[in-house]
Amino acid sequence: MSIARLTDAERAEALAALPVWHLREDGLAIVRKLKFADFNAAFGFMTRVAIQADKVDHHPEWFNVYNRVEITLTTHDASGLSRRDVEMARFIDAIAPQA
Amino acid sequence: MSIARLTDAERAEALAALPVWHLREDGLAIVRKLKFADFNAAFGFMTRVAIQADKVDHHPEWFNVYNRVEITLTTHDASGLSRRDVEMARFIDAIAPQA
Repeated sequence: MSIARLTDAERAEALAALPVWHLREDGLAIVRKLKFADFNAAFGFMTRVAIQADKVDHHPEWFNVYNRVEITLTTHDASGLSRRDVEMARFIDAIAPQA
Repeated sequence: MSIARLTDAERAEALAALPVWHLREDGLAIVRKLKFADFNAAFGFMTRVAIQADKVDHHPEWFNVYNRVEITLTTHDASGLSRRDVEMARFIDAIAPQA
């Protein structure tokens, strides 16, 4: 099933509700950087995201070094942001450590 | 305990024994790209590397999107490559799928 790209208005509304995420320069993805106590905490977090991502078949692009994780969410099938990115961002925010 | 940076001769010898890795342009790190059947396989592999990395306290820099993983190994304490990178590369090669 194909998935619709958010309209500009929908994207603005979604971003307003995700204050710790920023829009990538090209406007096609959202990005969040996280910092953890150590590698164990960072990879433990990544594992929770991985399980959820495979469950809903929507996978992040992400980079990790030691206690830092940078996550990029986009929907290739929609050539931009879709509600699936918003839902994944909400999941990540819910399990991320408080800043 | 500090760890020594490989000499040029040691580095050349190590790289010759790690044919699927390439030296980063600055000469301070080695890089390998891997491709898996799917995200489950890719993240399963990453989990094995993560457990080993934390055990030996030598962590990769890595990027993942769906079934692709790119790993960079370097030793910050040595400002370049050390035997710890070579050992981690060998571990990764041993559990990586055959190309």
